[in-house]
Amino acid sequence: MTTPDPSLLPVPQAHHGTLRNYVGGRWVESRSADIRDVVNPATGEVVARVPMSTADEVDEAARVAQQAFESWRKEPPVKRARPFFVLKQLMEENLEELSRTLVQEMGKTISDARMELRRAIEEVECACGIPSLMKGYVHDTVSPNIDLQVTNVPMGVFFMVPSFNFPMLVPLEYLPYAVACGNAYVNKPSSTVPVSQVKVFELIDRCGFPPGVINLVHGSHDVVDALMRHPLTQGFSFVGSSPVGAKLYADAAALGKRGQVAGGAKNHFVVMPDADLDITVPAIISSFFGAAGQRCLAGSVLVPVGDVYGPLMERLLPAARAMKLGNGLDETVDLGPVVTQRARARIVGMIDTALEQGAREVLDGRHPEVDGYPNGSFVGPTILEDVTPEMTIAQEEVFGPVASVIRADSLDEAIGLIRRSRFGHTGILFTTSGSAARRFEHESTTGNIGVNVGVAATAAYATLGGMKETGYGDLHGRSESVLFFTERKVVVKRWG
Amino acid sequence: MTTPDPSLLPVPQAHHGTLRNYVGGRWVESRSADIRDVVNPATGEVVARVPMSTADEVDEAARVAQQAFESWRKEPPVKRARPFFVLKQLMEENLEELSRTLVQEMGKTISDARMELRRAIEEVECACGIPSLMKGYVHDTVSPNIDLQVTNVPMGVFFMVPSFNFPMLVPLEYLPYAVACGNAYVNKPSSTVPVSQVKVFELIDRCGFPPGVINLVHGSHDVVDALMRHPLTQGFSFVGSSPVGAKLYADAAALGKRGQVAGGAKNHFVVMPDADLDITVPAIISSFFGAAGQRCLAGSVLVPVGDVYGPLMERLLPAARAMKLGNGLDETVDLGPVVTQRARARIVGMIDTALEQGAREVLDGRHPEVDGYPNGSFVGPTILEDVTPEMTIAQEEVFGPVASVIRADSLDEAIGLIRRSRFGHTGILFTTSGSAARRFEHESTTGNIGVNVGVAATAAYATLGGMKETGYGDLHGRSESVLFFTERKVVVKRWG
Amino acid sequence: MTTPDPSLLPVPQAHHGTLRNYVGGRWVESRSADIRDVVNPATGEVVARVPMSTADEVDEAARVAQQAFESWRKEPPVKRARPFFVLKQLMEENLEELSRTLVQEMGKTISDARMELRRAIEEVECACGIPSLMKGYVHDTVSPNIDLQVTNVPMGVFFMVPSFNFPMLVPLEYLPYAVACGNAYVNKPSSTVPVSQVKVFELIDRCGFPPGVINLVHGSHDVVDALMRHPLTQGFSFVGSSPVGAKLYADAAALGKRGQVAGGAKNHFVVMPDADLDITVPAIISSFFGAAGQRCLAGSVLVPVGDVYGPLMERLLPAARAMKLGNGLDETVDLGPVVTQRARARIVGMIDTALEQGAREVLDGRHPEVDGYPNGSFVGPTILEDVTPEMTIAQEEVFGPVASVIRADSLDEAIGLIRRSRFGHTGILFTTSGSAARRFEHESTTGNIGVNVGVAATAAYATLGGMKETGYGDLHGRSESVLFFTERKVVVKRWG
Amino acid sequence: MTTPDPSLLPVPQAHHGTLRNYVGGRWVESRSADIRDVVNPATGEVVARVPMSTADEVDEAARVAQQAFESWRKEPPVKRARPFFVLKQLMEENLEELSRTLVQEMGKTISDARMELRRAIEEVECACGIPSLMKGYVHDTVSPNIDLQVTNVPMGVFFMVPSFNFPMLVPLEYLPYAVACGNAYVNKPSSTVPVSQVKVFELIDRCGFPPGVINLVHGSHDVVDALMRHPLTQGFSFVGSSPVGAKLYADAAALGKRGQVAGGAKNHFVVMPDADLDITVPAIISSFFGAAGQRCLAGSVLVPVGDVYGPLMERLLPAARAMKLGNGLDETVDLGPVVTQRARARIVGMIDTALEQGAREVLDGRHPEVDGYPNGSFVGPTILEDVTPEMTIAQEEVFGPVASVIRADSLDEAIGLIRRSRFGHTGILFTTSGSAARRFEHESTTGNIGVNVGVAATAAYATLGGMKETGYGDLHGRSESVLFFTERKVVVKRWG
Repeated sequence: MTTPDPSLLPVPQAHHGTLRNYVGGRWVESRSADIRDVVNPATGEVVARVPMSTADEVDEAARVAQQAFESWRKEPPVKRARPFFVLKQLMEENLEELSRTLVQEMGKTISDARMELRRAIEEVECACGIPSLMKGYVHDTVSPNIDLQVTNVPMGVFFMVPSFNFPMLVPLEYLPYAVACGNAYVNKPSSTVPVSQVKVFELIDRCGFPPGVINLVHGSHDVVDALMRHPLTQGFSFVGSSPVGAKLYADAAALGKRGQVAGGAKNHFVVMPDADLDITVPAIISSFFGAAGQRCLAGSVLVPVGDVYGPLMERLLPAARAMKLGNGLDETVDLGPVVTQRARARIVGMIDTALEQGAREVLDGRHPEVDGYPNGSFVGPTILEDVTPEMTIAQEEVFGPVASVIRADSLDEAIGLIRRSRFGHTGILFTTSGSAARRFEHESTTGNIGVNVGVAATAAYATLGGMKETGYGDLHGRSESVLFFTERKVVVKRWG
Repeated sequence: MTTPDPSLLPVPQAHHGTLRNYVGGRWVESRSADIRDVVNPATGEVVARVPMSTADEVDEAARVAQQAFESWRKEPPVKRARPFFVLKQLMEENLEELSRTLVQEMGKTISDARMELRRAIEEVECACGIPSLMKGYVHDTVSPNIDLQVTNVPMGVFFMVPSFNFPMLVPLEYLPYAVACGNAYVNKPSSTVPVSQVKVFELIDRCGFPPGVINLVHGSHDVVDALMRHPLTQGFSFVGSSPVGAKLYADAAALGKRGQVAGGAKNHFVVMPDADLDITVPAIISSFFGAAGQRCLAGSVLVPVGDVYGPLMERLLPAARAMKLGNGLDETVDLGPVVTQRARARIVGMIDTALEQGAREVLDGRHPEVDGYPNGSFVGPTILEDVTPEMTIAQEEVFGPVASVIRADSLDEAIGLIRRSRFGHTGILFTTSGSAARRFEHESTTGNIGVNVGVAATAAYATLGGMKETGYGDLHGRSESVLFFTERKVVVKRWG
Repeated sequence: MTTPDPSLLPVPQAHHGTLRNYVGGRWVESRSADIRDVVNPATGEVVARVPMSTADEVDEAARVAQQAFESWRKEPPVKRARPFFVLKQLMEENLEELSRTLVQEMGKTISDARMELRRAIEEVECACGIPSLMKGYVHDTVSPNIDLQVTNVPMGVFFMVPSFNFPMLVPLEYLPYAVACGNAYVNKPSSTVPVSQVKVFELIDRCGFPPGVINLVHGSHDVVDALMRHPLTQGFSFVGSSPVGAKLYADAAALGKRGQVAGGAKNHFVVMPDADLDITVPAIISSFFGAAGQRCLAGSVLVPVGDVYGPLMERLLPAARAMKLGNGLDETVDLGPVVTQRARARIVGMIDTALEQGAREVLDGRHPEVDGYPNGSFVGPTILEDVTPEMTIAQEEVFGPVASVIRADSLDEAIGLIRRSRFGHTGILFTTSGSAARRFEHESTTGNIGVNVGVAATAAYATLGGMKETGYGDLHGRSESVLFFTERKVVVKRWG
Repeated sequence: MTTPDPSLLPVPQAHHGTLRNYVGGRWVESRSADIRDVVNPATGEVVARVPMSTADEVDEAARVAQQAFESWRKEPPVKRARPFFVLKQLMEENLEELSRTLVQEMGKTISDARMELRRAIEEVECACGIPSLMKGYVHDTVSPNIDLQVTNVPMGVFFMVPSFNFPMLVPLEYLPYAVACGNAYVNKPSSTVPVSQVKVFELIDRCGFPPGVINLVHGSHDVVDALMRHPLTQGFSFVGSSPVGAKLYADAAALGKRGQVAGGAKNHFVVMPDADLDITVPAIISSFFGAAGQRCLAGSVLVPVGDVYGPLMERLLPAARAMKLGNGLDETVDLGPVVTQRARARIVGMIDTALEQGAREVLDGRHPEVDGYPNGSFVGPTILEDVTPEMTIAQEEVFGPVASVIRADSLDEAIGLIRRSRFGHTGILFTTSGSAARRFEHESTTGNIGVNVGVAATAAYATLGGMKETGYGDLHGRSESVLFFTERKVVVKRWG
């Protein structure tokens, strides 16, 4: 079962196992001496090596991108959309290989990986509509013989700093819109999971984009910093933790640049006494423990309201216990490892602290035994009761398969927990009542609200919410991307 | 002619001549000891006194606003729009009085003042349409039994830091949208020209807004800083100089807040050989010298292309010379004073420097004699030739009635001047050629483009452009206000 | 109580009690010899006389309107919106007088009349936003040097054929949008209730519209026919019965014109066992019996599902019985007369037929005694049980205060009734279940759906639905008005 | 050169050379005895045979479509868009074969055919964006606890009656939007050129649409009539002549159905004295004579203004004379045959009449000799001078390669010709003046305006204009399709 998976090894764009950058339409070897291992979190094996690119290499990428931008911006939008039609098709044709690659460097289950790919494809599909999405508007005859029009014009080079948890999807939530709008792009993938984007870029390379329009530069925060300070970059998109996002957002503004940040989460799942537990329990299992709790939309705090507590826990515990841990490539596995040993240690530490602060473990996933994967960074499903809002575990992001249970007497009390959180990512309610749903929807201070769903996964065609410390910047992705990735040009003409 | 104008003096909301704040629906006297004079720039007379409010007073305003917000946000948009219908009507009924007040503290001509009021009214009219403008969207059936909707929800307390040059208009380019969207607001008017907004707030007071929804706090940068750092404020809008704007933009981001900045300008007016001089000359006169050059949309660098130079200057000079300086209240006056003696000194200094750097004055407005106004801060129309792109006068914002002439051999050369400027406010072309216009429109790097117009005044119903150092933030005013002044709330519901 | 109400009599635009037309900005006496009485349905008194205008008069109105259109279409939208701001204000100032006039010719209660006026004002407010609503769009660079824009251009003269049931509101659901879009308009009010629109036009006359842009011509179907066949009219809007609407829709198309028809209704109100009867019962009372059942959104068939039947009827009957009949001007009255004696006879006849076909009256309003109003055309609240879907009363529009009760065993059975109706106006569900609401919303074949509301009154800012025989034409009012009242002009320009 | 082209013959969906219908996802042989020849207009050879399907077959197609609709409407839009991504790809892969087929049955040149295919692909691409395009809107909190949403819901079965001149493109201007919106569809291709759509449907068959969602039924006006009267059809789209379109539009309305008609044209091309003849002449040649003048956007009346007449004609004549006639499959050919011998006779007859009425032929294409194609229905480029606005040739649609020259003294006189035409399709201006362009754009009464372009080909992402007798119905294709192919459902919910 620990046999090296052949689908990963042949990454054509690796040189003796070291990943290359993609700049100016070519795969180029980094000159950096700082090269790090990419590890399969299930097996502990090194699956690739990733260079921490140099400032020179960033500079080169930015210049190449800027040069490509000067022509690309002049292409009709309908032509800029065309390569994305090709990308969609190539991603579909390669969905299985991409999914397996993803599992091997990140650990999530193969079914999760396939779903991630499908959502990534949906983003590309949505960006194919850019000619409709980016059209401008016209006020005819604002005064006699004078007309006014407003168009959305691309700005130059944007860059992306994605999180590790959706290695395929996250960059594709931004890149296609930025590029279809007429900008050039530099993607700096997570150095923990850089192979997935290399695979995506192998496809991008075949779509017919002009060289330099889309670039990939490996590295860590030094590369981010170099991109940020480079005079040719116009702005960035970030998905990751709130403190890092907040800093980047401030950095960008201090340089007069644009930024959009999707930060951390502490998501409350509220279960009303009238909830349909047949829907609720599987949704909770999937949301709190699926992808090892490493989704920004994942459940973190479980809030049973009133009497539902007993019946809910009675069904939840056995369902959580029954989850099978293992290598995500195994189709029967429910739960893969968390992304790194370091992440594992952090999660276990947070559980320890919670117990010290008075929480009680009713299911303890700190030291699971996973047959055949002695080196995997596994954490099992964990359920903590007697959690109070003051505990660290109730306030900080865990990003692991841990459910903290806080009981509430009423919907208002539950909403109060959400309103007092410093995060504003997602709130979920389970209920059969239309009125409870409306109240929850209007009073909860989170950018994403779900009712009777485990993951309030927003369509590509909508946007992603994020309030308070969860989101910085006034424009988030998707439907708002056109405004973020362009400037308005107002033209007032008098003729006659 | 220097008789104190009765329309100003009776500002009911001044106590012994000192203006009051408007907080929580009441006019309140500031407790500040720091009180400054408001001076009529034509006469040098003190027309009012304005307090530099204290941090406590800012805190009180923010708290009161936040409290008002909690109810206001729940009102249906159609109800939140209603008081603005009243405001529009009151502004129309009081247009003449408001215009005269404006002239007395700011100096522009009465006809300019009336036009400013009309544009301010148009902003209010536009915000009356908020129920249409802020509607959300719905994706029905994103999956079986699952629907998704996105609504725009107000955020809390926003504040405004306006410029001095449109004392009536500028705050009303933001406030009505912010408030109609469901936010509460604090306006801190320019301390140079605070009376105009007091007059506006006397009308706002009569419109039926709930107390605390709209507030006015006098002061200077200390008040801005206190508003910025106050934990209850969500973001700000600023109109003024680029350096100040850039700093505020960075401050806001460092605090995780939103900002939008309309900064400085260095606007080039390009005249093609085929231009219709009957349209061109009056447009230039009005744009470069009207409002004493203190409009952000004003012309600053005049770029005659090729042969048009001779005939253009031949007609421009006498027209500029013929302008009558004086008190703006005099209907026959073409040009009032600049806003302060300090501004006058700065403008004159810039002209001095230009001459030292090699420019040649063909019309020198540094020391005009204005009968009856010995204490007025007047600068006459000034035309400088032999200006080169390297001179300070060609690069820095003057904000005075000064035209720097740089000749160009071709449209491309002229556009090159614009592309190299660090500002990106406005570019204007005079031509009869459709092709030249399109080329100028697509290649100039300014957020506002005019063709055959002196002032590319964008309608309230559009937006205001601003590229490079002219605009910070990804959303500017008007049509984009709904997105700036709200957050997106994404709701995903499964029923059945 | 039957004292002539002074607010009606002084209709300035009546000549010896005969209403005048409003054409070309002037009140003109009709030359018609055919003059009919307008009767107060509560008292039987003649309150005005209305001429059936001649074909010549229609021709004159159409020509005058066309001429006014030629200039009006060229005005900037922002200027075309301005008179509607004035109209809104005048309607508010005259709300009470307008409401009383409405009651006297149409019979509804004064509180209903006030609400109608408020909704009419909301339509005017919405049309004030026409500069935003009618803006066009631009596709920049569809090919090199080629841009494309699409604007909405007004077409010419439109006319209106309103129903009698909302004499103030219905024309204002169309006219303001048509006119603000740049068209000219001819309103032919219902000859049963023509005074209300005369009152509205007395205000329109004061708003500053150019003469001829908005016109009023009294008459009946001959006038409609003349307007339809007039070569200068471009299209019509109709609110009324489906057969008449269908004919007009066909007539218009045969002439190559546009039409939009809001036709009849047979609205089902479904009450689920989990419904909150505290909300349900008052909503049903108000919807079925309010305005004497003469609202197109009114309830007509009551469908209790399962066990709710008993408790529902137990509370409904006393509430219906307690309704007080009388003159709508009396503030304590719940139910005024139906609009004419002829309408009364028709409604009573339909009840008779229902009883013959096997229905059972549990509340019989056929012959109410109304103190002091022996000549009023009153019908009391009527509840029929044992109604089957095959009965005439279950299929035809009644337009009177009659509730036909058909019991259903399940939500699906109730929806089946709606799906089989040939009308598609409104379906209402009372429930506390989010799932039931979603199912009802998606499966019911009506253009308007309400959940827990008595009247699914759509905001001015939305549109009005109407499926099957209820609505003809692909565009209904309000938000869709811009497309209905304009043509698209596509402009493709190559410059350079 | 007359060798039978192999690419046509193997139409798999022909049975012994007779085309089949495509109903319910299967190719079915028509039971009709009425079978007609499809003729290659260049060679006179029969290339296929097409059945005139029976009323029974229409009924079956409508029923099958309705049944498919019941499931299809419930699919998420994102899923309904997916098969169109496949169709786009298949059309690209088969572009050359499709283009050759098109040439063989319709006659246009192979380069024209390829361009038609590219535009057809663009329509499919645009419809791939349906999830964005068809989203509904929501007014949150129209009253306390009450929200309103409006969604666009599909209606059922629509059908298409296309013209012969763009056999590949025209149905794809409507079908993808209708189907992606959730409707089912029946396409009845032109019986003159039915093979092209058979080829398209061979691709549609491979895209994964559920059986019955998209159907093809061959036939002529009897089939159209049967589709129109079928109780299950909801509306139609038509492209063709105005009289037929007008009749269908009236028929549909009389049945309460929806219709949209793109009818005839009489397009004026105005050339100003300042026009750039290097752009103008090739554009005129291409527009008047390309596709043998059978484009609805084609030039028909040439209006030189003032002095440009001489130089224009001097360059136009030799260019027209130099056009090479022949089989469109020959890459060197400029002009193929007109579609049928009947069309040829009609065009020649119109030229005859013009000459009788006083026109003068400066280039006579009535009897061209085309080497190797003795049986082809060729008409050569024809230029008529001394045409007056009263002549038949100046008023009626020719649909052949005929330019009628009417001189004008001024732009206003030229616009006057356009305003007096009973058609309102396209007006084109050649000029370098921005002012002339604006004036032409605002005063011409055509739905499509071009400036310096030969064909004002609107992007898929925009719409197609059509005023006066050119367009019936208030919604045309493309961007307006969502509204045409759906009904609005207004939902008002009170919760709490």
